[in-house]
Amino acid sequence: MAEAYYLHVTDKLRDVLLTDDTAWVNDNGKLPAERELAQRFETTRVTLRQALAQLEGEGRIHRSNRRGWFVSPKRLEYDPTRDAGFNDYVRDQGRLPRTEVLSVSTSSHPPAAKALGLVADQTFYHIRRRRYVDERAVLVESLWVVPERAPGLLDERFDFSLWKLLREKWNLRLSHRSISMVSEALQGADARELGVAAGTAGLNICRTILDGDQRPVEYDEEHWLHDALSIRVELKQHR
Amino acid sequence: MAEAYYLHVTDKLRDVLLTDDTAWVNDNGKLPAERELAQRFETTRVTLRQALAQLEGEGRIHRSNRRGWFVSPKRLEYDPTRDAGFNDYVRDQGRLPRTEVLSVSTSSHPPAAKALGLVADQTFYHIRRRRYVDERAVLVESLWVVPERAPGLLDERFDFSLWKLLREKWNLRLSHRSISMVSEALQGADARELGVAAGTAGLNICRTILDGDQRPVEYDEEHWLHDALSIRVELKQHR
Repeated sequence: MAEAYYLHVTDKLRDVLLTDDTAWVNDNGKLPAERELAQRFETTRVTLRQALAQLEGEGRIHRSNRRGWFVSPKRLEYDPTRDAGFNDYVRDQGRLPRTEVLSVSTSSHPPAAKALGLVADQTFYHIRRRRYVDERAVLVESLWVVPERAPGLLDERFDFSLWKLLREKWNLRLSHRSISMVSEALQGADARELGVAAGTAGLNICRTILDGDQRPVEYDEEHWLHDALSIRVELKQHR
Repeated sequence: MAEAYYLHVTDKLRDVLLTDDTAWVNDNGKLPAERELAQRFETTRVTLRQALAQLEGEGRIHRSNRRGWFVSPKRLEYDPTRDAGFNDYVRDQGRLPRTEVLSVSTSSHPPAAKALGLVADQTFYHIRRRRYVDERAVLVESLWVVPERAPGLLDERFDFSLWKLLREKWNLRLSHRSISMVSEALQGADARELGVAAGTAGLNICRTILDGDQRPVEYDEEHWLHDALSIRVELKQHR
């Protein structure tokens, strides 16, 4: 019975979030304080917190350091069957993309080498970036590019589309892509660079990219905030 | 520097997990005790635990109640562009599927109604199940079926494929599918039925299914353990 009741409060709170009622959510997307929410729903703080945790798990609200609970922005939608570039699919959804370069180096990375079918000590150009949607940091990513495919790449700027650069400057066709997506718990540098606690739920997207002649070009790994992205596929089949 | 060092230990431990060396992992997939691991890697318990947390976040190992750390079974791969039934894609990967029915009822569910374009108080057949791979519980799911599409459905057994049943007994073509996948933090009944702590990273897959005449048939929602599944899409494009 206790559980049924907390789910009842969760449902009521979820309904409130789906309206634009400013009695509940202020212009900054902030919810009233927990004490006030508990009063409005005529429930205890314990039950209220269960409901808030449920909605946080669903990605509908998030906590901001000591400033309380906020409604999470609408999730971006990503269709892996199209695999458009970040800037394109963010803009197509009426949102503002931005990319910040965190580091550029040359290094080996055995998982990238393995995915691309190269020897374990293969050297890569390694670019690490943080990406924003409407000025909220939503992902950090590492890109490992095979130097033979794009000699001199490290002299370029990386705060725009890498794929566009590879296509336009090195005439590479990014034809074969294997995309793998798993849920993860964000740890270490990934969590810190996204401003969340270690262990926070995240989404990991890895791509292995070969060119039109099946030569290895790039391996990349994105770590997303769990509430920022929805993977979406539409199927029309005739079975 | 402290972080670089814990990542170094993580890399060494990850390498060990990729071998089948019984000096490291026993027949049950259990790792040595933390104290012993710290000694073997000549590191502190604190650093070792950071490395273990990183590998847990990646889904490579998991903790089992008081019994220590275990290597996680290989992830199942799910290709949303094929969207085969659970029994089929589990068996195709040489694994053993099993389905347990948790509850069967009739109820309304506004999110299902909204997804299917029905009125909010639409009544559904609601089936809740837990599914296993090689006898490990990997997901819990709720299925909401439009009663008009499959009258008498609740008299059937649900420990096999629902889609097969709908196709064979009610002659339904499950033609149009919208599949949405998001990372989540498992909460409440979902976490408990999977035997993990509330807040554990999970993967949520929702499907909205219409028949060949675009009539709403079914809405379902799966909650997966985050280390049990990898979503995988292969693209061959000519750009």
